[in-house]
Amino acid sequence: MVDNTVLGSLRHSSDLLKRGFARMQQGGVIMDVVTPAQAAIAEASGAVSVMALERVPADIRKMGGVARTSHPDMITGIIDCTTIPVMAKSRIGHEAESQVLQSLGVDMVDESEVLTPADPYFHINKNAHDIPFVCGATGLGEAVRRIYEGAAMIRTKGEAGTGNVVAAMKHARLIDQEIRQVQSLDDAGLDAAAEHIMDRYRVLAHSSEMPGESWVTPFGNIDEEMHGQLRDILVEVKDMGRLPVVTFCAGGIATPADASLMMQMGVDGIFVGSGIFKSDDPETMADAIVMATAHYDDADKVAEAMSMMGGSPMKGDELETLEVRLDQRGW
Amino acid sequence: MVDNTVLGSLRHSSDLLKRGFARMQQGGVIMDVVTPAQAAIAEASGAVSVMALERVPADIRKMGGVARTSHPDMITGIIDCTTIPVMAKSRIGHEAESQVLQSLGVDMVDESEVLTPADPYFHINKNAHDIPFVCGATGLGEAVRRIYEGAAMIRTKGEAGTGNVVAAMKHARLIDQEIRQVQSLDDAGLDAAAEHIMDRYRVLAHSSEMPGESWVTPFGNIDEEMHGQLRDILVEVKDMGRLPVVTFCAGGIATPADASLMMQMGVDGIFVGSGIFKSDDPETMADAIVMATAHYDDADKVAEAMSMMGGSPMKGDELETLEVRLDQRGW
Repeated sequence: MVDNTVLGSLRHSSDLLKRGFARMQQGGVIMDVVTPAQAAIAEASGAVSVMALERVPADIRKMGGVARTSHPDMITGIIDCTTIPVMAKSRIGHEAESQVLQSLGVDMVDESEVLTPADPYFHINKNAHDIPFVCGATGLGEAVRRIYEGAAMIRTKGEAGTGNVVAAMKHARLIDQEIRQVQSLDDAGLDAAAEHIMDRYRVLAHSSEMPGESWVTPFGNIDEEMHGQLRDILVEVKDMGRLPVVTFCAGGIATPADASLMMQMGVDGIFVGSGIFKSDDPETMADAIVMATAHYDDADKVAEAMSMMGGSPMKGDELETLEVRLDQRGW
Repeated sequence: MVDNTVLGSLRHSSDLLKRGFARMQQGGVIMDVVTPAQAAIAEASGAVSVMALERVPADIRKMGGVARTSHPDMITGIIDCTTIPVMAKSRIGHEAESQVLQSLGVDMVDESEVLTPADPYFHINKNAHDIPFVCGATGLGEAVRRIYEGAAMIRTKGEAGTGNVVAAMKHARLIDQEIRQVQSLDDAGLDAAAEHIMDRYRVLAHSSEMPGESWVTPFGNIDEEMHGQLRDILVEVKDMGRLPVVTFCAGGIATPADASLMMQMGVDGIFVGSGIFKSDDPETMADAIVMATAHYDDADKVAEAMSMMGGSPMKGDELETLEVRLDQRGW
């Protein structure tokens, strides 16, 4: 099932092409779907991609247990009935799950904290894969590490499955603030910032109390070369005033106004998980959120999208009431 | 649905006009209503405005989950059946919800801690909106920040949905005490007070451990100009011996005597949420609270209003028993 067509080889492989695929999603909405029927609703609403998974985050929370990548039949079932790109989730650090997803022909892998992490130390070495990846981030350091590891798209982590946009807002604000901080740095400051970001790898690579040293990560050694590559990404951030990859918002978006709010924060597009298929009227909610995302800066259009909502948005959770905080998984 | 009439343009836009609209509410009672029938009761009782929302605070507490702005149909349903001004609530920091409310034609937005906050750092930049805003405050610093951000009316936060007036009293006493403190300050003292109030923005804008600096807020940079504007508001407070905008009391008012108590604290009017429509006889309670607010300094009239009450006021809660403290949301 590997995609050997010219289109397939164009879509994947080089960093430029991987980022290019991610850029095609810009301005759009990516929707979690668990059945072909839901995928059809997403496609009809104008979603730019679907995320195929067995359970939306709200149900993963409710069900508990270990959340893993979805069954291949589930994923190929969605691929076969959809003409828009299909993404799927791999556990953090689970190289094999992401290899399986690539073999199944998905268009992008989400290395997601919504699933139970498989590696407590390191993420997937995304540079070693042909398929593009999207990864979550709660701040700039995390985003830069994921880009260094090969992520072609970053999304705010938010707090998936809660219908509560406050964590997504927090992460968007932090990344924004830290981009400004980087813009205030001179050469010595950029060196220090790259060191600061590399420190997290030091902690992870050297967490044993045994004597001796190890500075090995799945991505490369913790050395001058890694420092230089992290620094290069920071220089891109400084020059562009933004992340050098497409940046989406995810986690807790439950109404058209939420989608507009996050787009006004300057993100390139949004992921909606539980917010659509846990609302009273998913079909209309899908249309309304796509409309509000496209016209995020036109209050009358967003009001119209809000008026379209049939019944209530998903009920949602206050963060203080949660047993598991997904946004604290994987730095 | 945007109000393009001359009346609409007079009502909104300039700071003076925004504050002027707020001043028209002076001496009055603003009541939470969830149905057109309740809006009719409020209007008949002499309420100066209604606050249209899907659930009164007591029910928001009971229901749990994420509390968001109300469905547009609910709000326009109230607007269409009422001749007095209609207010509606937006989540703290949710620019898009307040834009939607303005588009729907509401007269004033309440950026309210009764809803689940959308932004953990910042409030809405109210200066960037044409519509007037009311915001809650637990002390003078919070009130001054909200006025700097463009609020045309301040209300004590109180502890909404409890029928317990003690938190509203606490906030009214604190604001009153701090106004006296400001009146004791010389020029250097005013500088220090403005610094103290600005410190909260410093914490919010600079919460990252990354190297570099960022002093950006949605309202302006944390600099001499912001300091000067905060200081100007303090000078107004010093000269006037009160806040420079209309100041209402809200949160926990459940009887005519509660309304009289708060008016005697020097506030310009009151919000009553759960207190009316969670009492045994809302129609009479609405009349009685309007009467006690108008004649707050005439004990015989307040006694008469207390005698009018049919059945009991709302049951209410001791603050120690609460799971969620709304008055601690958003500084």
